[in-house]
Amino acid sequence: MKDHLIVFDTTLRDGEQSPGASMTRDEKLRIARQLERMRVDVIEAGFPAASNGDFESVRAIAEAIRESTVCGLARANEADIRRAGEAIAPAARGRIHTFIATSPIHMEMKLRMTPDQVVEQAVRAVGWAKEYTDDIEFSAEDAGRSEIDFLCRIFEAVIKAGAKTINVPDTVGYNVPEQYAQTIRTLIERVPDADKVVWSVHCHNDLGLAVANSLAAVMAGARQVECTLNGLGERAGNAALEELVMAVRTRQDVFPCDTRIDATQIVPASKLVSGVTGFPVQPNKAIVGANAFAHESGIHQDGVLKHRETYEIMRAEDVGWGANKLVLGKHSGRNAFRSRLQEIGIVVASEEHLNHAFARFKELADKKHEIFDEDIQALMSDEVVTPDQEHYRLVASRFHSETGETPRADLTLSVDGQETRTSAEGSGPVDAAFKAIEAIAGSGTELLLYSVNAITTGTDAQGEVTVRLAREGKVVNGQGADTDIIVASAKAYLNALNKLHSKFERLNPQL
Amino acid sequence: MKDHLIVFDTTLRDGEQSPGASMTRDEKLRIARQLERMRVDVIEAGFPAASNGDFESVRAIAEAIRESTVCGLARANEADIRRAGEAIAPAARGRIHTFIATSPIHMEMKLRMTPDQVVEQAVRAVGWAKEYTDDIEFSAEDAGRSEIDFLCRIFEAVIKAGAKTINVPDTVGYNVPEQYAQTIRTLIERVPDADKVVWSVHCHNDLGLAVANSLAAVMAGARQVECTLNGLGERAGNAALEELVMAVRTRQDVFPCDTRIDATQIVPASKLVSGVTGFPVQPNKAIVGANAFAHESGIHQDGVLKHRETYEIMRAEDVGWGANKLVLGKHSGRNAFRSRLQEIGIVVASEEHLNHAFARFKELADKKHEIFDEDIQALMSDEVVTPDQEHYRLVASRFHSETGETPRADLTLSVDGQETRTSAEGSGPVDAAFKAIEAIAGSGTELLLYSVNAITTGTDAQGEVTVRLAREGKVVNGQGADTDIIVASAKAYLNALNKLHSKFERLNPQL
Repeated sequence: MKDHLIVFDTTLRDGEQSPGASMTRDEKLRIARQLERMRVDVIEAGFPAASNGDFESVRAIAEAIRESTVCGLARANEADIRRAGEAIAPAARGRIHTFIATSPIHMEMKLRMTPDQVVEQAVRAVGWAKEYTDDIEFSAEDAGRSEIDFLCRIFEAVIKAGAKTINVPDTVGYNVPEQYAQTIRTLIERVPDADKVVWSVHCHNDLGLAVANSLAAVMAGARQVECTLNGLGERAGNAALEELVMAVRTRQDVFPCDTRIDATQIVPASKLVSGVTGFPVQPNKAIVGANAFAHESGIHQDGVLKHRETYEIMRAEDVGWGANKLVLGKHSGRNAFRSRLQEIGIVVASEEHLNHAFARFKELADKKHEIFDEDIQALMSDEVVTPDQEHYRLVASRFHSETGETPRADLTLSVDGQETRTSAEGSGPVDAAFKAIEAIAGSGTELLLYSVNAITTGTDAQGEVTVRLAREGKVVNGQGADTDIIVASAKAYLNALNKLHSKFERLNPQL
Repeated sequence: MKDHLIVFDTTLRDGEQSPGASMTRDEKLRIARQLERMRVDVIEAGFPAASNGDFESVRAIAEAIRESTVCGLARANEADIRRAGEAIAPAARGRIHTFIATSPIHMEMKLRMTPDQVVEQAVRAVGWAKEYTDDIEFSAEDAGRSEIDFLCRIFEAVIKAGAKTINVPDTVGYNVPEQYAQTIRTLIERVPDADKVVWSVHCHNDLGLAVANSLAAVMAGARQVECTLNGLGERAGNAALEELVMAVRTRQDVFPCDTRIDATQIVPASKLVSGVTGFPVQPNKAIVGANAFAHESGIHQDGVLKHRETYEIMRAEDVGWGANKLVLGKHSGRNAFRSRLQEIGIVVASEEHLNHAFARFKELADKKHEIFDEDIQALMSDEVVTPDQEHYRLVASRFHSETGETPRADLTLSVDGQETRTSAEGSGPVDAAFKAIEAIAGSGTELLLYSVNAITTGTDAQGEVTVRLAREGKVVNGQGADTDIIVASAKAYLNALNKLHSKFERLNPQL
């Protein structure tokens, strides 16, 4: 009987901290449902003390999710922990994850605390957490650069206080596998009652080694891996869930444990996260990249490739490729639409919202032959599910460009319910549309990124546009989808402005 | 004194084998020049026996490159090796890289040869190669699944025959670091005269472990790493050059060797490869992703981040970020344009081509305020440098879309020098443009991918469109750049059709 390797997904917490990857509550809920469907053991749903919005998101996820443990992050102080405790209260299984920095540089420069004070604070934090749940995880921030003696000391203390999972993050992605494994091995050997807790790892990918470091730690005895879909996360991101899960599963001859993940949900989950954040997955990304299972044609030199094991160590179907099935067309009814929404994990707030969404679906079906799951995801990622945030909305548009003339856009916008017209010229029709919007909005933002991806294949595919805007150090992504790329661009720009309009201050912890 | 770790870049060979990543000769030359500037030790320029086009590309690179060794790949047969020998003949330093499969499944199913015959053939191959160069590399294809005794036997034989570099590829990306390192260690211990050759590794990333496996092998004694920019390559790609180089450099306390790479050329090289292939780099990609060095704003909780080492293990400037400098504007003259082209490694074939390119530069400068290096790269990636391939060309265009109406495109195309007009409606202006083109071309292709990236920031940035078309199993990428995204789309589509028009059969070896 193999050990169980616990998969702790932090897409919604560490992943969401990526510049430009912030998500609305509804987007987070949708991803949480997909994580549950994939059978993730623990979903780190957010950092409740960061803002009221973060608190609400964690609480909504705790209410919705039944099969996975829902976890809230908290610094090692009373206010943070009480906030996390309240947020996870509705969960079937709730966890509080508390952390404090343990490296000399962080204790001195950031916390301005002595090592003794740090240990004392950590123990107190576990005590507060126990008022809410027995499932308590403790992390030593920047463990990768902490002294091993001090780590042993603080871990012994928090285990005595009641922590059940001990996490050893490589916060700055500085470790190499052999060395990191040695750290885990030493901790498990030296810390009293090490066998009473689950040892966990949390690796960052700055040197491209997050997955390798995590796996080396698993060989050394770790039984929880913290990870994100697509390796999302600050800087170069976290260990990629899909790579960890498939490496362990493919190499069962080497690993003494396995996860309970339903791998066929990996590709849908990856696409969902990529769609919500607007972060593309590069074609040569392992497992979830478009080329991961594709061979260049022409290599079938002598038919040997019919023996699939010659060049394949996994099957594309096993990780959920090929599930992009045609689901609906222009004759599909309201009930078919509603049940497809349910199947792909989208919950509509009210009948009124459903009606609105269905009307937009019919509009799309008029323009586009075949409607795939991705189209529906994009449709629902648009403003439909969060009309409350909709300060600006595109009502109508007219674009014209011609060789030798300056491209021009004429728009009708709804601003807080009031319709208003605006026009501009630009270096292209997209530039003209953005300038026309700015003539009204005067947002003072800077455009950092503009990208388009076709949602499905074929020339009548919808374009999904991502626009990243920055103002005073705040970064937001807006998305818009339409078969007309200029319309999609205008929608994306307005979506970003709407997010900026409703955006609040928040904290982002470093693990 | 540290050992020298040889960086063997195979972006132009294994990288180019990615579905959709094929490059023209001029694109390959431009990348080769950037690799030389980055101080790559060995450039694998292609597989000369694959096609006449591949032969010409390798030969052109062998003529142009002086500082790096230029390598041609060849199967272990006389025809392949002679072809490679001729292709690398003009090189300052030329290498022949020959390979044969050594795993039981490949020897039996693909080669239909006995192990004795395989050894004999390998030795003969090295003999042919010696007629052209002393710098001979031998690879055991699918070494990862070969028997260790047989590997020892064949390596001993080829070393005796004159091979100077012995490469141990993990063709299917199945290895894990500890095990792979053990294989390398065993080979170096057991093969006679192992210390007279350089041991090399070539890892694929199917489980996300290509870099970790390569580094584990380096710790075990390997002194050449085969890699690609952005980790490009078939399926999930090869080990990423940038991650290998920066892991070794950042962890000089662990590694017994270092490369001679000029790391400040890494980001420009990454952007060049991404631009030429149309493969985006995901924001959370280590080293070269847009977010790799960016922190989410709002985390600067208490100013501690002014101590940069708190969260940074590398500096963005060290790998070439921030080099996106303003170079030219609308008042820049022909000489400034010419010398900037030289500085970024673009060679223009003739004065006539330079004039044509300069005219297009002026056109762009009229529409766009500031011209960055990336704009010039995109401008030159367009048809200018290869007018010989230009079967179709966009002469003029007119686009119109309006809420409630069907989008429409009217184009004037030049087909083999003959001007012709075409119009179509579509689900969006891009769809209309593609349909108008197909009304003339009737290519029978399928659109696999459509994506747009802004080349620089700001609303007047140029959009760079990538279109991937497939016909009868052949896949090509087309690129087009313009401040008008619809025009860029039409150009990209025509560029792909032109490539398809001039595309020939070729072989892709599996290493």
